[in-house]
Amino acid sequence: MVSFESDYIAGAHPQIIKRLTETNLECLPGYGTDKYCESAKEKIKAACKCEKADVEFLVGGTQTNSVIISTMLKDYEGVVAAATGHVSIHEAGAIEYSGHKVLEIPQSNGKISAEVLDNYIATFYSDANHEHMVFPGMVYLSHPTEYGTLYTKKELEDIAAVCHTYKIPLFLDGARLGYGLMSRASDMTLKDIADICDVFYIGGTKVGALCGEAVVFTKENKPKHFMNSVKKRGALLAKGRLLGIQFDTLFTADLYLKISRSAIDKAEKMKEIFADKGYKFYLESPTNQQFIILENGRMENLKKHVAFSFWEKLDDTHTVVRFATSWSTTDEDLKALKNALG
Amino acid sequence: MVSFESDYIAGAHPQIIKRLTETNLECLPGYGTDKYCESAKEKIKAACKCEKADVEFLVGGTQTNSVIISTMLKDYEGVVAAATGHVSIHEAGAIEYSGHKVLEIPQSNGKISAEVLDNYIATFYSDANHEHMVFPGMVYLSHPTEYGTLYTKKELEDIAAVCHTYKIPLFLDGARLGYGLMSRASDMTLKDIADICDVFYIGGTKVGALCGEAVVFTKENKPKHFMNSVKKRGALLAKGRLLGIQFDTLFTADLYLKISRSAIDKAEKMKEIFADKGYKFYLESPTNQQFIILENGRMENLKKHVAFSFWEKLDDTHTVVRFATSWSTTDEDLKALKNALG
Amino acid sequence: MVSFESDYIAGAHPQIIKRLTETNLECLPGYGTDKYCESAKEKIKAACKCEKADVEFLVGGTQTNSVIISTMLKDYEGVVAAATGHVSIHEAGAIEYSGHKVLEIPQSNGKISAEVLDNYIATFYSDANHEHMVFPGMVYLSHPTEYGTLYTKKELEDIAAVCHTYKIPLFLDGARLGYGLMSRASDMTLKDIADICDVFYIGGTKVGALCGEAVVFTKENKPKHFMNSVKKRGALLAKGRLLGIQFDTLFTADLYLKISRSAIDKAEKMKEIFADKGYKFYLESPTNQQFIILENGRMENLKKHVAFSFWEKLDDTHTVVRFATSWSTTDEDLKALKNALG
Amino acid sequence: MVSFESDYIAGAHPQIIKRLTETNLECLPGYGTDKYCESAKEKIKAACKCEKADVEFLVGGTQTNSVIISTMLKDYEGVVAAATGHVSIHEAGAIEYSGHKVLEIPQSNGKISAEVLDNYIATFYSDANHEHMVFPGMVYLSHPTEYGTLYTKKELEDIAAVCHTYKIPLFLDGARLGYGLMSRASDMTLKDIADICDVFYIGGTKVGALCGEAVVFTKENKPKHFMNSVKKRGALLAKGRLLGIQFDTLFTADLYLKISRSAIDKAEKMKEIFADKGYKFYLESPTNQQFIILENGRMENLKKHVAFSFWEKLDDTHTVVRFATSWSTTDEDLKALKNALG
Repeated sequence: MVSFESDYIAGAHPQIIKRLTETNLECLPGYGTDKYCESAKEKIKAACKCEKADVEFLVGGTQTNSVIISTMLKDYEGVVAAATGHVSIHEAGAIEYSGHKVLEIPQSNGKISAEVLDNYIATFYSDANHEHMVFPGMVYLSHPTEYGTLYTKKELEDIAAVCHTYKIPLFLDGARLGYGLMSRASDMTLKDIADICDVFYIGGTKVGALCGEAVVFTKENKPKHFMNSVKKRGALLAKGRLLGIQFDTLFTADLYLKISRSAIDKAEKMKEIFADKGYKFYLESPTNQQFIILENGRMENLKKHVAFSFWEKLDDTHTVVRFATSWSTTDEDLKALKNALG
Repeated sequence: MVSFESDYIAGAHPQIIKRLTETNLECLPGYGTDKYCESAKEKIKAACKCEKADVEFLVGGTQTNSVIISTMLKDYEGVVAAATGHVSIHEAGAIEYSGHKVLEIPQSNGKISAEVLDNYIATFYSDANHEHMVFPGMVYLSHPTEYGTLYTKKELEDIAAVCHTYKIPLFLDGARLGYGLMSRASDMTLKDIADICDVFYIGGTKVGALCGEAVVFTKENKPKHFMNSVKKRGALLAKGRLLGIQFDTLFTADLYLKISRSAIDKAEKMKEIFADKGYKFYLESPTNQQFIILENGRMENLKKHVAFSFWEKLDDTHTVVRFATSWSTTDEDLKALKNALG
Repeated sequence: MVSFESDYIAGAHPQIIKRLTETNLECLPGYGTDKYCESAKEKIKAACKCEKADVEFLVGGTQTNSVIISTMLKDYEGVVAAATGHVSIHEAGAIEYSGHKVLEIPQSNGKISAEVLDNYIATFYSDANHEHMVFPGMVYLSHPTEYGTLYTKKELEDIAAVCHTYKIPLFLDGARLGYGLMSRASDMTLKDIADICDVFYIGGTKVGALCGEAVVFTKENKPKHFMNSVKKRGALLAKGRLLGIQFDTLFTADLYLKISRSAIDKAEKMKEIFADKGYKFYLESPTNQQFIILENGRMENLKKHVAFSFWEKLDDTHTVVRFATSWSTTDEDLKALKNALG
Repeated sequence: MVSFESDYIAGAHPQIIKRLTETNLECLPGYGTDKYCESAKEKIKAACKCEKADVEFLVGGTQTNSVIISTMLKDYEGVVAAATGHVSIHEAGAIEYSGHKVLEIPQSNGKISAEVLDNYIATFYSDANHEHMVFPGMVYLSHPTEYGTLYTKKELEDIAAVCHTYKIPLFLDGARLGYGLMSRASDMTLKDIADICDVFYIGGTKVGALCGEAVVFTKENKPKHFMNSVKKRGALLAKGRLLGIQFDTLFTADLYLKISRSAIDKAEKMKEIFADKGYKFYLESPTNQQFIILENGRMENLKKHVAFSFWEKLDDTHTVVRFATSWSTTDEDLKALKNALG
């Protein structure tokens, strides 16, 4: 059965598998100190056009969010995020496990706005009782968001300006960053992201790797003794080569962006298929995740032929579901989808 | 200057000071094992008409909320609370410090409803991705609420029914419980609270004590080795007598209820004063906290004569402020308020 | 029955009870912002001859240790302490609850030495694998120690020198500080303690107060937004006056030192009584806690007449027990002890 | 340069790389719900001859120790471990990060004894002050230990008997379990381990996998909602297939044991080489890690030709170093070592 269930249904891009195979018997030191990690870091810094960046590799998205947020927040601070943010809802309380509150603010299509953010933070500096409240100590946003939407460069800059007013870092969760950068709606490059954000990560798991996220600290702001904090959280991979080799491959000859573009092309074709067949979109998404409104009977029927994800109940007779393309989506997959839609 | 700033502006009820003085040089064992703690526990169980209850004393409200919630939740659970709940906003992240999320739900005048609660919890049992979410493992409510409002017996029973359906405990924060029980709008006794809730506490700090909250576990559900967990959280008082003697006094000859009733009588008179002078109430509160809408200029002027609390900005020209009575409020205080209101 | 069970068997010094009574009905703001807290802080700074000190009040010893250690350590650090330290053994894991390790080092009669400490810390800077270890980020010691022993000024200075070499703070747990300062063996004043240590606390609970510990940050090193962190840990007392009034009284007319001296005088007489009767001391303690070796049969018999504390099993037929004097110990108590010893 | 630096210097066993390649483009569901995880679990249960076992996969050793210990301990408990245990020293405080204390007890050559353990735990049930102490709630041991040594079946059974007396689980860290089972000194099978222990894990990272540890709960004692707790700790791998395929391969045709035996054979040859050349062993290790005492000058010289690990300073002129073989060690490696030793 053809699957659009997520962007992590396949293994790794074949080029990655090839490099893992070729390097497999080389003797390398552990814990991210090998030459492939070193090389991958240099390539990522070059791709970001940010020589002073510090790059570190972690294994998965929730782990990365938790490590970054909990090592950069001060004791009395929490992280501000959209009420629909991944850290707010879908990480089983990983941020709270680190002792910090997620300060949820209203969003629109998964995005927060500079204005809402500014008003929110301002109350902490004008209100009474601030000694009894959790201070906003960082802003978290995902790009693309959980709804596949994107920030414009202007929107991101405005949010960063609010952060800088209050002297708190802006953290961008780029679990699907490639799909954002290659979206036809994007007006930002990797360099823009690095310029604007204080810390962000380049997602590997959902963009062609078996696992792995590359964290980029852009402002000489990597927490001191960061690897101890990583180890303390059980997040230090003994065979760091597994991450280094994958990212070294993804950042050679623009592989990361090329395969991201492929996923976007497939998503655009998929949108046409749905539109042609008269399906309704829950919202306009310019990236690889598409949210479709299905009548429940139709949904049950479709399930027999195509795999997709339940997203949320819309009303008693309709459901929002997600179809995701990825670097591994093929034209055959799209043809099968088209046929299944009838 | 007369003060209605809070219900903890004075020391302790004189009867408590008297008992502390009389018993001061007695040699007593530490950590809550003295005879006064023992006696106070028995009196509280009798007042609750709940012989199987386990009663323990803690020092303050935030500490009590944190200890109860974090010792009763399982690792993968969070606590459901009103978005305006004390644990949600005004405890500086104390629940998150224990590694657990506060799951905030919509409220009305500080109260949650059984229906909203049921719909919320139900999603965890129907949705996908429940392995990535924090399970609702307890319901927290405050009575009176942070807005001075009260649950009816029927409302509390309905919420308890939802809890029992999902086999999770109902926890009532009774930091101001006395003022709730003695409100003219109350249809519940202490026995009702004990019957309906799985755990609750009887606030001392805001109802006549120097400090102290009496936790009541009503269903033979006190966490095992509870005192170790209390100690681990830095919440075990060496001279437990300080708590025992105070609660023993408060639960002798109904002192707790009598002084609570006095505060309510004063609050009702205060409401009349405000109403007579044409002030607008932010909401109808039947307890000792009254929320008044003040035009900002008037507020600044009033501040010179009466102490009260800022609550929240209503709009650009108006502010919601709180006036609280307590066991220590006198007729002279009310007269001074009346004069100040002009 | 006469009791030497601990130094917290009585209530508060009568002068404290008197002041609590006199000030009881005054209207005061909450959370430590009242005039008595302010006055007490000034008096403590004066007593320490340290104008730049920041003084804050907390409720109990374990809470104070946990708050100070967890707000001053960095994420990747632990606190070094004697294997017999209070934080190592008798706080039910309160430091670990904050996410930090207690790094236990060897001790002698409850004391650590600068040499052992230096060798221990040095390994973290010479060894491999330091990314996998918890860095020593603070040194904790108690004075008097858990065995009633004292550091000399020279010993404390040497330990501080090691701390400063590695740029980590020295924290002195002064739960019984008064008894240390007034010991006939002491060569330090409160000013010396303030000069040498980076942070310490002046114990109230065991030296005449109902509760309360006064934390002194001596080097302009109070953690930012400290009261938020205190609140987050459930350690912020609503009626802060309870702490302020007690410390204001203790630091008026040298009451703290006077009552400490009285306890020392009584302890010296107690030592004579034991020595005269031929009892063996487990170690030489110059403070208010005396550790006596009792043959088990004799111990059981003595228990019928005098209250004391079990300390540890020495061998199959002998036990180490503790007799403590305090500010409340009287000549009658000593006479009763003498008679009981037979 | 030939390397005996650790047992994780190479990638994965070629058979694993082959299977990852073959299955790479298959569409599989995420988070460990794929058919390879399922198959691997069944094979592991069969290898353990324990049908009722629950098997779960995690990514690395520290993560696994932290997840198991923190989900199985109760709030007031800590984990007992050898003072040299991996959780005690080399995990950067990962256990403490979860809020629990590691209760370190004396060891010999990395091993704890049933007698020392029993005496230690017994004190918690006889002593005073147990409300102020961390209860021993689990016993952790590693097999092989950090020093390459092994428990005999009798020793392990005796330790398990102590655990069962006190009703606490026995947890065996098997990061190098294969090398233990295949040691010529071993008198235990995988079934024995499963029979005796309450929970243990089968290390993949150090025995042929790129990453991955297989946790085995043997007594129907997997914590409820375990995957939520895994997610909460940032330890849930999106592409669970990476773990499933690796363990499925390792447990097909006894690959795990075969490659472990190869490492042991190489280690035995390595021991002969060292012995023939007159080198001194720090202790007798029957597994793949050998600890050699080197005169410092000789050590510096040898470093130029062979990679090995610093272990600890023995005295001013000698150092203990570690040479490890693994599944990837070849006869050529041994020859190169022999030549380098001169």
